[in-house]
Amino acid sequence: MTGVRTPLCDEFGIEHPIFAFTPSEHVAAAVSRAGGLGVLGCVRFNDAEELDRTLTWLDENTDGKPYGVDVVMPMKVPTEGTSADLASHIPEEHKAFVDETLRKLGVPPLPEGEGREGVLGWLHSMARSHVDVALQHRPVLIANALGTPPTDVIEECHAAGLKVAALAGAPKHAQSHIANGVDIIVAQGYEAGGHTGEIASMVLTPDVVDAVGPDVPVLGAGGIGSGRQVAASLALGAQGVWTGSIWLGTEEYRNLAGNRGWETAFLRASSSDTVRTRIYTGKPARLLRTRWTDAWAAEDAPAPLPMPLQNLLVAEAHNRINASGDPDVISMPVGQVVGRMNAVRPVADVMRDLVAEFEEAVRRLDGIAAG
Amino acid sequence: MTGVRTPLCDEFGIEHPIFAFTPSEHVAAAVSRAGGLGVLGCVRFNDAEELDRTLTWLDENTDGKPYGVDVVMPMKVPTEGTSADLASHIPEEHKAFVDETLRKLGVPPLPEGEGREGVLGWLHSMARSHVDVALQHRPVLIANALGTPPTDVIEECHAAGLKVAALAGAPKHAQSHIANGVDIIVAQGYEAGGHTGEIASMVLTPDVVDAVGPDVPVLGAGGIGSGRQVAASLALGAQGVWTGSIWLGTEEYRNLAGNRGWETAFLRASSSDTVRTRIYTGKPARLLRTRWTDAWAAEDAPAPLPMPLQNLLVAEAHNRINASGDPDVISMPVGQVVGRMNAVRPVADVMRDLVAEFEEAVRRLDGIAAG
Repeated sequence: MTGVRTPLCDEFGIEHPIFAFTPSEHVAAAVSRAGGLGVLGCVRFNDAEELDRTLTWLDENTDGKPYGVDVVMPMKVPTEGTSADLASHIPEEHKAFVDETLRKLGVPPLPEGEGREGVLGWLHSMARSHVDVALQHRPVLIANALGTPPTDVIEECHAAGLKVAALAGAPKHAQSHIANGVDIIVAQGYEAGGHTGEIASMVLTPDVVDAVGPDVPVLGAGGIGSGRQVAASLALGAQGVWTGSIWLGTEEYRNLAGNRGWETAFLRASSSDTVRTRIYTGKPARLLRTRWTDAWAAEDAPAPLPMPLQNLLVAEAHNRINASGDPDVISMPVGQVVGRMNAVRPVADVMRDLVAEFEEAVRRLDGIAAG
Repeated sequence: MTGVRTPLCDEFGIEHPIFAFTPSEHVAAAVSRAGGLGVLGCVRFNDAEELDRTLTWLDENTDGKPYGVDVVMPMKVPTEGTSADLASHIPEEHKAFVDETLRKLGVPPLPEGEGREGVLGWLHSMARSHVDVALQHRPVLIANALGTPPTDVIEECHAAGLKVAALAGAPKHAQSHIANGVDIIVAQGYEAGGHTGEIASMVLTPDVVDAVGPDVPVLGAGGIGSGRQVAASLALGAQGVWTGSIWLGTEEYRNLAGNRGWETAFLRASSSDTVRTRIYTGKPARLLRTRWTDAWAAEDAPAPLPMPLQNLLVAEAHNRINASGDPDVISMPVGQVVGRMNAVRPVADVMRDLVAEFEEAVRRLDGIAAG
């Protein structure tokens, strides 16, 4: 056996069709160097110049291997404006609830002048600037986490030789992406971290594969943190896998996160310890279940606000929670596969094990089919 | 290739480790004759003599092939009593909501004297009588749909040479089953029809396999309606699959259901058209989404009652809905795999396709692993 080889490997010049979404350029670079495709999540970059510097770093630290970028461009353009404009739409009741919840949970305020800026990557204009910056570098793939990108963005990417991927939580969304020119579908199952729909991978992946037909590559996403799960996703008809959570448990991720309680939290979490909720962005997303998510699930909690207001509402709270480092309160998107994350390891080791266990699973299936 | 062969085949004397839960003895017999293991759901039998006659029919119509039975024995013994005793615990508000909802949905009353009896199989005493009756026949497996069966029931089954299986929605439940003497775990994922937990099959199956160790066979359940899904489940480490929904789309099932709107409903349903709700039994179970489930999800709807009261509350409503045959109102447990059920076929054809597509998926994986 020679690992995991599908037509996507030749298309992208990668060794294994293992795509790794990550907010960390260190993780993305290590995945690409290890034979997968690192995909840098851009939503955290409020500053185009910072993204530019980060992509320059990626260009220089991937040993010439390909990488991708992920932007968040909702199909329906949400409310636009600066952080301050938008904040005026946030009800006082919600602000009071956040303040009171942080007080109850013992999360201290930030030092004066630190980290109050929210995340603006959820805004359409910001996502477009991410695309513009990315096209100055050498990504091979642009993925959109929320629906079909605008047609002119797709055309711009194609003209620059990039492939365009989009996440889909239902077969009809996948069909609509393809009709609008998207090249690759990421079938994102219910068990995934971050934004998810209701359909679990076991059902979603083959449904999407059948809906888009044999000429469109589908990446299985949601619940993939071991080689058995890679084999299962490919058995369902995917040509590759889209992974995310498992890279939050790597040594390289520490460059971004430090260890502000996150490692303690995920090392002890089981697959039952996540929750799908609108409190992170306003759209349903799966997070680690903590006292913070429990507070929002309580009867007295207000309903989350629509995107992009909810993320602005909780932006400072997220900064305070991160600074406090309390693993019981952490606010972190992660999939049900968190139960399988039981050690902090280098990216290269995780990748090697994914491939080796995939081969082992295929050998086991061969034995089952041979009787 | 010789189909799907795991150690469970020899253990049960079956050709393929494809277990089929079904309320229909016609489906169960056809599955067993086709090389799988038909498992008759007993919960619908209020009358021990009727179950006895049905198992006699199974004994005589399976060509000597093995079959199993499925009982519903909650770990915590719920409220006991006759239908009439229990009905006194149901609030008037709930009864009024059911009556008013049926009126709004245009579901006519039953003819005088017909079908008012609820389903008592959810009662512990009734489930025990199901076990007693089953032991007079020749099942090879008793499965319990809700937790660990009482230890004396497990011992009785073992003494009679039967294996005992139990459904689990989380690894800790599987470990507890094994500690109490259960032989086989059915890992029931979120996407499954009927009672389900929160963890999807892609994550649950390998987590349960790892939690119980290599000596305990695990059946993957939830989302399995094609050979690709069988291959995926076995790739995840299952030794067999536990299927349910797909057999509701067979010709043999018509013997039980007639076509009271059900076929119209499932033929048009997509994988998005189910909902996980407590309205069927009081515990979370996945149903086809219809105007009936929508009514219970509305803001003015009362919270469902605990088991077994909720099922008694809606028992007559279920009978009225079934009699009306309106596909928009139907109340039916089914998994997300309903989107894949696009034709009514004989059981033997479904089984043949499961095996053939499994073999095709394994060949495809071989190609991927060979590069």
